[in-house]
Amino acid sequence: MTQLSRRKLLTGAGLAVGAGAAAGAGLVRLAQQPEPVLLQAASISEPIPFHDAHQAGIATPVQDRLHFAAFDLSTDSPQRVVTLLKAWTAAAARMTSAQEIGGGATGAELAPPDDTGEALGLPASRLTLTIGFGPGFFDKLKLTRPDKLKELPHFPGDKLDPARSGGDICVQACADDPQVAVHAVRNLVRIGFGVVSVRWSQLGFGKTSSTTPDAQTPRNLMGFKDGTNNIAGTDTKKLDEHVWVGEEGPEWLRGGSYLVARRIRMHIETWDRTSLKEQEDIFGRTKREGAPYGGTREHDPVVLDKMPAESHVRLANPGSLSGVTILRRGYSFTDGSDGLGRLDAGLFFLAYQRDPEKGFIPIQRALAAKDPLNEYIQHVGSGIFACPGGVKPGSFWGEALLT
Amino acid sequence: MTQLSRRKLLTGAGLAVGAGAAAGAGLVRLAQQPEPVLLQAASISEPIPFHDAHQAGIATPVQDRLHFAAFDLSTDSPQRVVTLLKAWTAAAARMTSAQEIGGGATGAELAPPDDTGEALGLPASRLTLTIGFGPGFFDKLKLTRPDKLKELPHFPGDKLDPARSGGDICVQACADDPQVAVHAVRNLVRIGFGVVSVRWSQLGFGKTSSTTPDAQTPRNLMGFKDGTNNIAGTDTKKLDEHVWVGEEGPEWLRGGSYLVARRIRMHIETWDRTSLKEQEDIFGRTKREGAPYGGTREHDPVVLDKMPAESHVRLANPGSLSGVTILRRGYSFTDGSDGLGRLDAGLFFLAYQRDPEKGFIPIQRALAAKDPLNEYIQHVGSGIFACPGGVKPGSFWGEALLT
Repeated sequence: MTQLSRRKLLTGAGLAVGAGAAAGAGLVRLAQQPEPVLLQAASISEPIPFHDAHQAGIATPVQDRLHFAAFDLSTDSPQRVVTLLKAWTAAAARMTSAQEIGGGATGAELAPPDDTGEALGLPASRLTLTIGFGPGFFDKLKLTRPDKLKELPHFPGDKLDPARSGGDICVQACADDPQVAVHAVRNLVRIGFGVVSVRWSQLGFGKTSSTTPDAQTPRNLMGFKDGTNNIAGTDTKKLDEHVWVGEEGPEWLRGGSYLVARRIRMHIETWDRTSLKEQEDIFGRTKREGAPYGGTREHDPVVLDKMPAESHVRLANPGSLSGVTILRRGYSFTDGSDGLGRLDAGLFFLAYQRDPEKGFIPIQRALAAKDPLNEYIQHVGSGIFACPGGVKPGSFWGEALLT
Repeated sequence: MTQLSRRKLLTGAGLAVGAGAAAGAGLVRLAQQPEPVLLQAASISEPIPFHDAHQAGIATPVQDRLHFAAFDLSTDSPQRVVTLLKAWTAAAARMTSAQEIGGGATGAELAPPDDTGEALGLPASRLTLTIGFGPGFFDKLKLTRPDKLKELPHFPGDKLDPARSGGDICVQACADDPQVAVHAVRNLVRIGFGVVSVRWSQLGFGKTSSTTPDAQTPRNLMGFKDGTNNIAGTDTKKLDEHVWVGEEGPEWLRGGSYLVARRIRMHIETWDRTSLKEQEDIFGRTKREGAPYGGTREHDPVVLDKMPAESHVRLANPGSLSGVTILRRGYSFTDGSDGLGRLDAGLFFLAYQRDPEKGFIPIQRALAAKDPLNEYIQHVGSGIFACPGGVKPGSFWGEALLT
């Protein structure tokens, strides 16, 4: 086992480790870590820079926890929105470097604290805050929508709940500690009082994809490794080609990306009564190792004609779709139960791409039409957002769009 | 900073660390961990024994994450329940030692896998599974209820949602990795199909109490340290006096405990607009340090007449209540938003005690009548359960009750 995977293990990362080792050990999961392990603490707790060429939280190595919030604007005044975005940016820059919000001036005990306090003393936990603007943001503020920011088409099988869909602004908070992610969203909600209100929000507890090539691939709630062939956060060529908006987009959006968020409910009780063979046929990969059909190891190449014709992996593979590719950043969720004795569990799927028409939309068209997984999943929430490029020091989120 | 708190920090424990250090550093949270830290890996990833004199998960040092599930019985057949409890116990023993459920026999690919798979390769993560039986369990199976297992009285201000209250059986899954806790509950649900169904379940992401005396005290979502004076898991005298049922109880319950679970919604948006002074007056402690009024450090003794007469800490203090004491095991939750633009957030409060009439009930009577915190919180879910004593190897959960 590598130093990296050990470190991840010890941070409670929810990662599936050592596929080979686990298979070799038969039925025994990793019950013990016999020797003390030397951690490179800096690498897991150093803050991720807020100011950068791109917004952090997109190509950044995926953190363990998510709190995603979609907001509705309650104003049509660009000035009020500018004031909010300046305050949000200042708060985000502080929180991502593990600083309290505000000045904490002495003698302020008769005022509400600037910071709600529950992250006091906690490390930065690799917190990133990523903003995106939905179609309604442009319409309400009478701004020009970017060409490719259109409501998604209806896909067969969609059963979207309006209370879990849409939103004029989204904020994706990712961190290795949920208390840090929740603290960040909560304080942005607080600062936004009167200008925005929360439309919906979603917590995710187990990442289901990785953008770190040498990390072990995590498993989704169907028990399968997920995200084996994701774009690496270090692969600048692929990121430029498939993720970052380039010259074709408006200036404020260059270096940014389009985000499609989908809440995908899994009917895990039904899935759990399906045979191993059927589960593997549906994915086109083995469950324990994650090997594609025709191969024996997880990272063996996907050979399309060795796969069942309508397997999930084959249908979603770039080779089946003229090369369309997205950057995935998914999280599992379990939101209690649904009143029918079933767990309300599934995958909160975040797809970043340069152009939704060459990313999520053709992939989902192919999957919605044919994917045998559709018997076990249902898309119940949806949103699309344009995420601007990186923030320079002294600037604020959306400055180039709004001024 | 002690070795212990560093270790906790690095495991993403959601702990508030180094109160003194944080205060000294002014506004700067712990942004960096400059040197590599030597972890005693065994202490954080060794499995917690399932078979013991008491059920694990009560006095066990509090893990970072919770998945709590309440089940309804869909049978009145004690035989079917015995079969279920045997299967559950076998699965629990395996999962808490990081083993897959079932035999994993070869040639079984035409059957559903025995284990749903999403914890494959993950360490035990200090998973504990703790069972309790609610009043309906005894009524439906025509068993004698233990004397002290009565529905809780109505408290002023309660606004209990039946869909988040009650239950014939509860299972508390605690682990340092949420994927491990969710996997455990999900597999018990699966095994229970046809005999029990999930009535409600609750995830918790940040522990708000500690049973480890030298650990730093975590903070709740009001930003205050919570659980400063909890019973230590090593204090066998206090545990025997206040937590474990003794000779006064039926034999199957000796060494067990009564559990009261309360879902406490916090109106955090209102709280966040309250002055620091009012927040501190309400708790009777300072926010940053957690010092009781009249003292300067968190662990300074609580001197009741230095506290505001109706402060939360004074009202709930054993000194105000003829010595009543509970073992607390609370977790923060944030379950999305509530449709009114507010986060559905709060505290999932788990209180263990030898006798609810000498534990949760008098404390909550005092708090419900007078606690100024009631303006900012509301109890919205509730359950009471009798948790049997420890399980011996070869035995099963509830054997002494049901056979």
